[in-house]
Amino acid sequence: MAFEQQLRIPGPTPLPQRVVRAQSRPMINHRGPEFVEMFAEIISGLKRSLRTENDVLLFPASGTGGLEAAVANLLSPGESTLFCTVGAFGERWAKIARSFGAEVVHLAMPWGESLDPDDIDRTLAEHPDIDTVFVTHNETSTGVTTDIAAIAAVVKGRGKLLAVDSVSGAGCLPLEVDALGLDVVVTGSQKGWMAPPGLTMISVSAAAYERSAKATCARWYFDFAREKRFQDKHQTATTPPLSVLYALHEGLRLIEEEGIENVWARHARVGAMVRTGVTAIGLELFATEGFRSNTVTAIRNPSESADTLKHLLATLNTKHGLILAGGQRELQGHIFRIGHLGMVDDSDVYAILATLELALANLGMLSRTGLSVAAAQTLARFGDGATQPTPIG
Amino acid sequence: MAFEQQLRIPGPTPLPQRVVRAQSRPMINHRGPEFVEMFAEIISGLKRSLRTENDVLLFPASGTGGLEAAVANLLSPGESTLFCTVGAFGERWAKIARSFGAEVVHLAMPWGESLDPDDIDRTLAEHPDIDTVFVTHNETSTGVTTDIAAIAAVVKGRGKLLAVDSVSGAGCLPLEVDALGLDVVVTGSQKGWMAPPGLTMISVSAAAYERSAKATCARWYFDFAREKRFQDKHQTATTPPLSVLYALHEGLRLIEEEGIENVWARHARVGAMVRTGVTAIGLELFATEGFRSNTVTAIRNPSESADTLKHLLATLNTKHGLILAGGQRELQGHIFRIGHLGMVDDSDVYAILATLELALANLGMLSRTGLSVAAAQTLARFGDGATQPTPIG
Repeated sequence: MAFEQQLRIPGPTPLPQRVVRAQSRPMINHRGPEFVEMFAEIISGLKRSLRTENDVLLFPASGTGGLEAAVANLLSPGESTLFCTVGAFGERWAKIARSFGAEVVHLAMPWGESLDPDDIDRTLAEHPDIDTVFVTHNETSTGVTTDIAAIAAVVKGRGKLLAVDSVSGAGCLPLEVDALGLDVVVTGSQKGWMAPPGLTMISVSAAAYERSAKATCARWYFDFAREKRFQDKHQTATTPPLSVLYALHEGLRLIEEEGIENVWARHARVGAMVRTGVTAIGLELFATEGFRSNTVTAIRNPSESADTLKHLLATLNTKHGLILAGGQRELQGHIFRIGHLGMVDDSDVYAILATLELALANLGMLSRTGLSVAAAQTLARFGDGATQPTPIG
Repeated sequence: MAFEQQLRIPGPTPLPQRVVRAQSRPMINHRGPEFVEMFAEIISGLKRSLRTENDVLLFPASGTGGLEAAVANLLSPGESTLFCTVGAFGERWAKIARSFGAEVVHLAMPWGESLDPDDIDRTLAEHPDIDTVFVTHNETSTGVTTDIAAIAAVVKGRGKLLAVDSVSGAGCLPLEVDALGLDVVVTGSQKGWMAPPGLTMISVSAAAYERSAKATCARWYFDFAREKRFQDKHQTATTPPLSVLYALHEGLRLIEEEGIENVWARHARVGAMVRTGVTAIGLELFATEGFRSNTVTAIRNPSESADTLKHLLATLNTKHGLILAGGQRELQGHIFRIGHLGMVDDSDVYAILATLELALANLGMLSRTGLSVAAAQTLARFGDGATQPTPIG
């Protein structure tokens, strides 16, 4: 059992104590001088973490709200557009675009697989009328990270606008917004940023603003141009979620103290440790090799039965205090997911793996405990290079 | 000076300690069993406070997001509709409807005045094609509360749908959603509910759901039908702002412990005390008599000069720790506003009035202090009936 619940779903993530304390600060006037300095620090912290000189606009909304904002600001009803998706959240994004009247050409990969940049290039060649491409960077539902650099090279090489869902990637995975020329990148407070849910943050390039001025999809709340006018005055267009901003402010400080490249390296190490650990006890990873996310690991149901998986997850919750996520939509009963983003480090991986082993053993699904932890330890100690010894078990 | 800032703007409001503590609870899985009980209690608490059996849907957004949700779910592009407004937020609401392609008939009252139900009746008679009416209940920018019961009688008498902006009214002012037949009522977490901003709550009648099924305005994030499907499973369609929900949960408990009718009475008393106090020292109220809000008081600039008002508000902030709000848009420089909603009681009124007096006296704008506090005390002691003695000063 855990003294406190271990929340290891792919967001919301646990909050560091410093973030919890920051979040508890008294309310202030969001139109007054009290707001200005904090707001400016948040924006500049986000820009540094995203490696961009573009504006980063904040909207009170979930990540899905941010994805809708990208659609509403970049598209016009009847316009052909390309969505390149690798799971449930990407497919939801394409649905949002259809709700707004776009003609969606949908390159929808089978769940678990990643995108091939050549497919995107070919699709764009076949549809020269498409001006804007929407791509998932990190897909929470399948544990897949796409090769956003290679995809950006193709899309920007053809002079198209590129909008990226990095809700659960940004702040954890390397993402160089300006170097890759990403026009719109959507992320959310409750993922790598170590704040509670309630805020979506969106980087917007000059070209995206230009497009927004012409795009005729209905919008008011999520309008980029209005939000920019307010942000230029160090305000938000509507009342911001102050306590979430307080938390984000402190989360960004933690990121800056660690250094964003160290944050990326920590997520890479932790992701590798989780994968090495679970495969060491015979569990199978769901995502294609080479595209496995360092923020969320999807694992195939170790049993034939969906009920057994349900029982495993319920037991982990009630008997062990470890909260993992099941599969979404058609993956329900077929996979479970471990979130490892934001406030997470090696010691959390050991706790997760050891607890998971114990629950599997108690359910008669594992004969010997300790192997996954040992494998993760070995990886932490020696890295995954050629000299890596086999786990001693 | 105040030991801590006294935040007396019309939202965000100060948070009770119990709410701050509740807000600090650890993150949980919003798709897990941990979420269900709290969510059910929040929904039923909101329904009791709003006096409705209708669903109350929650969206991660500011109050303006809720106003956009009402537009997007009730209207279709090209449809004629009526907006009855008394200030900046109502006019913003009408703009949102125009952004979504509605043909807006706009009964826009001069700022400071309220709505005449007969005008609404006449307008509806002149425009029989109008099916839906949008009305402001409590206008934060002008300190006006409309007679929503009389307006509802007219609108529902003609069989129209009625959507109400009560972002800063609900939870403070008497509002019997079902008795009045209100189809959509929008409110926000950071007003009377004593929680931080980040959540909009919207009551939706069966007739509003029916309309929503036919209304063709573009929407996904704010779609009522999808949100209802998730709420029926004790979930939200997208990740909810958990810490704001924790706070709202505790805010609702405070309201239920006090009793909603006592909450209404407290706001009525506090509103009357503020008005009596400020008029006792010669300040002029901006809103028309009989329609003055019990959650926010708008006061005319006591000087001829906008700069003097700006200086007064800045001095209150920096020298006295009292944060009041200026005027919005064309009222900037012409009024200032005191927020008295949520966590507020008699003692706060004394502190506000005494501090305001002192600042006015220090600026040479008031010759004698104490009169406003004394007037408020007298009102608190004897009520405002015929037997009320004149303040002894």
